[in-house]
Amino acid sequence: MGRVTVRRRVLRLRDTAASATAARGTAVRKVDVLAAEEPLEIRLGGRPLTVTMRTPGDDFDLAAGFLVGEGVISSAEEIVAIRYCAGAAEDGANTYNVLDVALAPGTAPPPASLERNFYTTSSCGVCGKASLDAVRTVARWRVDGDPVRVPAEVVSALPGRLREAQRVFDRTGGLHAAGLFTPDGRPLCVREDVGRHNAVDKLVGWAVRDGRLPLVSSVLMVSGRASFELVQKAVMAGIPVLAAVSAPSSLAVELAAETGLTLAGFVRDGSMNVYTGEERLSLASP
Amino acid sequence: MGRVTVRRRVLRLRDTAASATAARGTAVRKVDVLAAEEPLEIRLGGRPLTVTMRTPGDDFDLAAGFLVGEGVISSAEEIVAIRYCAGAAEDGANTYNVLDVALAPGTAPPPASLERNFYTTSSCGVCGKASLDAVRTVARWRVDGDPVRVPAEVVSALPGRLREAQRVFDRTGGLHAAGLFTPDGRPLCVREDVGRHNAVDKLVGWAVRDGRLPLVSSVLMVSGRASFELVQKAVMAGIPVLAAVSAPSSLAVELAAETGLTLAGFVRDGSMNVYTGEERLSLASP
Repeated sequence: MGRVTVRRRVLRLRDTAASATAARGTAVRKVDVLAAEEPLEIRLGGRPLTVTMRTPGDDFDLAAGFLVGEGVISSAEEIVAIRYCAGAAEDGANTYNVLDVALAPGTAPPPASLERNFYTTSSCGVCGKASLDAVRTVARWRVDGDPVRVPAEVVSALPGRLREAQRVFDRTGGLHAAGLFTPDGRPLCVREDVGRHNAVDKLVGWAVRDGRLPLVSSVLMVSGRASFELVQKAVMAGIPVLAAVSAPSSLAVELAAETGLTLAGFVRDGSMNVYTGEERLSLASP
Repeated sequence: MGRVTVRRRVLRLRDTAASATAARGTAVRKVDVLAAEEPLEIRLGGRPLTVTMRTPGDDFDLAAGFLVGEGVISSAEEIVAIRYCAGAAEDGANTYNVLDVALAPGTAPPPASLERNFYTTSSCGVCGKASLDAVRTVARWRVDGDPVRVPAEVVSALPGRLREAQRVFDRTGGLHAAGLFTPDGRPLCVREDVGRHNAVDKLVGWAVRDGRLPLVSSVLMVSGRASFELVQKAVMAGIPVLAAVSAPSSLAVELAAETGLTLAGFVRDGSMNVYTGEERLSLASP
């Protein structure tokens, strides 16, 4: 439980490119540090809901954040208890890979058809538009009225702050990171995971359990690309600004436009592309 | 249907870093090319099986490859037909986002509990070991006996060949790529997608529909990290060598070790880490 990294012996090959002067290459044995990956099954009232491959740690936050993203909960009061299931393995041992969430009376569990993401529950023809509608229908709050202003200079500094705050990335190179920041760039929470969605779920779960939802006037910075699902998770948590180091997808931009989220991509080397909600990003005043 | 990219107007901010000499920064409007993302629902005999967010194109291959990865099929003969469902949308239009696969008589559909990945179907306690066992139990062939030898120099050249073969990456920066290569580095098939798993599913689907499974003596190169699921997909397709530009996870290495797959990570700049199956990778002979 809670192993974030795993050490493993590897064979390191160097100068293997055809153009290398040492044409034969060299091989040395060393110890490499890997990002830990283990399955986590989330149950609701004893009924299996989903399994995700995640880096162990902050599992209760991951479960709570996942439920926020799916529109099942929006406050800490809607969860009565979260616990690891003892005896989930055949020998009765606790694997710390199965969680059971008890919802408060009156909080409805998702439909039985729920799979990993709720765009699967749209009953009409599956298309981008239906996916956008599904998020809009389920969202508990709107981000389009959030008046926050963030200096572009602050956003440009976030990838560096994310890396500073990451404890594991430099050692494994295998973890995605997500950070929640104030409009002046102060980190509120940073989480890492082998799965990009899990890192955001862990952040949002931390926030909901700490009574912080909706996350008005906050900025979510992610280390990779911005997909539809990451925009969905931001909107469901009430986050008005999402910034990504790499590219967004077409549907991510469409969902951001429909919900009024500010979406910036390619945030690197002192520049960025602003796809939606540019009114929230200000260049420095003279 | 089949839109691989989408054009969109963006605001490009430059010199936004605090240290920039032009302290105010500059803003210009330009047109950006985004990777298209749309949901795809895969049905089996009319029954919804899964929904994945993918880049449109090669959808039949995606569905077939997904079914190989889940252990449902291992040859083209096990599929009678694949077709887009007309009338899936409320207005009766074909969204080209819903596919129905008809399996041959005698080919069993997966259990009703199947979700996106088959490690969810393990009935015992969820843990890494159970996930490994599940793959081993379902795999139709073994890769540990594959005697292929691949010069390290060839593997080092694959990331460059993958980028050369990518038609979209340079324009959007938003697509993952996967390529299937011969032991001397000749590309057999390259696929791109907003989802890393989809790119591999499209490759494997191409191969199974072309009667090429198991993919003995082939090398799979992926543009990102190597997760448990990517190793699973390689093993289910009979691929003996998996190389990744970035880091593998702990469970990816464990599954590779258990099944006898050769796994190389951090394949970049003329070097790589070999985690398992090093006997298949040879340094150049003098």
